[in-house]
Amino acid sequence: MKNSPFKKRLSYLKKDFEDKNIDMLWIVQPENRQYLSGFMAHDTQLNESSGSLLISRKKNQLITDSRYTVVAKREAPDFRVITQKGAFQDELVKQVERAGGKTIGFEGDHVIFNLYNDLLKRFKKSPNPVKMKNISGMIEKMREVKDASEIAIMERASKMMSEVLDRVIDSVVPGQTEKEIARMIHDLSIEAGAEGMAFESIVASGPNAALPHAVPTDRKIKKRDHITFDVGLKVNGYCCDMTRTVFIGKPERKIKEIYKIVREAQLNALEYVRPGEMSTRPDSVARDIIGRAGYGSFFGHSLGHGVGLATHEAPRLSPRNPVKLIEGMVVTVEPGIYLPGKGGVRLEEMVVIGKRGPRILTMNRRYYDF
Amino acid sequence: MKNSPFKKRLSYLKKDFEDKNIDMLWIVQPENRQYLSGFMAHDTQLNESSGSLLISRKKNQLITDSRYTVVAKREAPDFRVITQKGAFQDELVKQVERAGGKTIGFEGDHVIFNLYNDLLKRFKKSPNPVKMKNISGMIEKMREVKDASEIAIMERASKMMSEVLDRVIDSVVPGQTEKEIARMIHDLSIEAGAEGMAFESIVASGPNAALPHAVPTDRKIKKRDHITFDVGLKVNGYCCDMTRTVFIGKPERKIKEIYKIVREAQLNALEYVRPGEMSTRPDSVARDIIGRAGYGSFFGHSLGHGVGLATHEAPRLSPRNPVKLIEGMVVTVEPGIYLPGKGGVRLEEMVVIGKRGPRILTMNRRYYDF
Repeated sequence: MKNSPFKKRLSYLKKDFEDKNIDMLWIVQPENRQYLSGFMAHDTQLNESSGSLLISRKKNQLITDSRYTVVAKREAPDFRVITQKGAFQDELVKQVERAGGKTIGFEGDHVIFNLYNDLLKRFKKSPNPVKMKNISGMIEKMREVKDASEIAIMERASKMMSEVLDRVIDSVVPGQTEKEIARMIHDLSIEAGAEGMAFESIVASGPNAALPHAVPTDRKIKKRDHITFDVGLKVNGYCCDMTRTVFIGKPERKIKEIYKIVREAQLNALEYVRPGEMSTRPDSVARDIIGRAGYGSFFGHSLGHGVGLATHEAPRLSPRNPVKLIEGMVVTVEPGIYLPGKGGVRLEEMVVIGKRGPRILTMNRRYYDF
Repeated sequence: MKNSPFKKRLSYLKKDFEDKNIDMLWIVQPENRQYLSGFMAHDTQLNESSGSLLISRKKNQLITDSRYTVVAKREAPDFRVITQKGAFQDELVKQVERAGGKTIGFEGDHVIFNLYNDLLKRFKKSPNPVKMKNISGMIEKMREVKDASEIAIMERASKMMSEVLDRVIDSVVPGQTEKEIARMIHDLSIEAGAEGMAFESIVASGPNAALPHAVPTDRKIKKRDHITFDVGLKVNGYCCDMTRTVFIGKPERKIKEIYKIVREAQLNALEYVRPGEMSTRPDSVARDIIGRAGYGSFFGHSLGHGVGLATHEAPRLSPRNPVKLIEGMVVTVEPGIYLPGKGGVRLEEMVVIGKRGPRILTMNRRYYDF
């Protein structure tokens, strides 16, 4: 693939080497690794990496162990795959020395303290000592803006999730448990072709909907319940993320009231998800509407977050850390109101920021016009 | 629960504070956190912790955010749950200062480089500066030897997995894909009461069985295939891990030959999984048998590993890093021979080391006596 997105990303990345004062870059974070190489293998545990990238101006290397050699070669054709014989550290130091690296960039946000210290010692002892430079956030920054190939995948994931959620909502009947419904979401997603869920589905019914991060329980759905579904599946490593609150039968007055407010906050916030706006703006628009309606203290989280290879990534749409929104960013817009003991409503769209404004990727139209 | 295993573990742990020169301990690693407190919430991403423990001689605190407060209180009754308002670092520093901590132990194997540096700076600026002391491996060491409550759970998990695997093997027919079979393993495990799989199931058929870490593909099972199943489910956070290679129809001569060797290596190695033996001994016994049969270079991994809250934990049964085996350790014994392009055989038992020798927890008896 001459025009593989990875080639483009690597060449873009290497242009930054001079600015960052590095001549090599070591990448361990799984999503960053996939973003630059295509290598999708998961780390089996926090302390068990399935491989890392070593990128210099001239070479792209992927160091892994024999369990992953075959899949690495298939998934990352732009990289030379090196199978480590002994400890990973030995191989990394050897390759850096062989390439004559002087300063190696590393991900301070992802490298474990002990591993850093071990490498620091070894690099100091090298015949030509190698410096380590913390380049936290360098790849995450690149990942903020999605290219056409990424948006196409995320659109596919969102369509798939929307259709699955439609079928699930149509089939919900009183007596089912939250756990059973969550399992159905999982099974239908896999059947539809997803790799898996992007995160554990939230199926929060009745009073459980008051917990923003509810875990599905054995609670049985009742006749006049409302249910919040916060769901996302994965396709080619990319996540989608969407939330709907739906009513089984006639809604309770109070829940209907907050539903209207949340929906109004969402629609208004969406208008400000445009290139050139600050990331704090949509949040403040939604927060104002909810606050004026008297529910300010019941909307405790921020409005949204970037989505991509990770479910949660930059940029955040929150009251803090303003950054300028850029065409190609993919973010969620998810206001909510949570009434302890009573229930709650959250509505979440995932949108790509287009030249002229937001394009909603989550196609499920399960909204109520009260 | 007066005699909760957590109380015992905490009191055992605190006896070590003096030796380690610490008066407080900060625990972030998810399995260590569960081991000491019972708090089971998963971290949603590498950089998104669901909480951490702050343990001093007098106090046991669990710091988390509002999403987890309710579940933390339920799961960790021996801990005081503190809900952080802003950033986690602020809360940690505040609590350490309030307790008058002088030296705080941290997990150098699990704390991210940037977080360490941030805390180091803040602690230095404290009115009474606090030192940070790397206590890597302290909790992992405790976890190596299982108590009766842990062994009981792991026995339950192993029985569950064995029964599920039995049903799956009975139902396999040519034409099914590896992915379909892997999905069935997942669904039956959940149905049987598992929390989930401990790791992604390996269902590797025909030539795919030559990959020790094969990922299930769309390959359809054929009439004279052999299939390697490496599977494990989770119960109460505890993992099991087992592997069987089975034959669909009459086995090929070569695969039958290596099967006999692997089984012989396994049975002989098991004899040395006893208190007082070195952890390198069972590995060398298995490796000798496979080597003498002429397949030494086709057994590339180590013989086994500890299992508990993590699928892979200490001690390893490998040719390196000898440690003495102790009653109560739970380890796998899993020799294999892999013939590229042709196929492979791996057989894995999970055993608890009893006073008089190994007790096999994985009850599935799908072995062939050729």
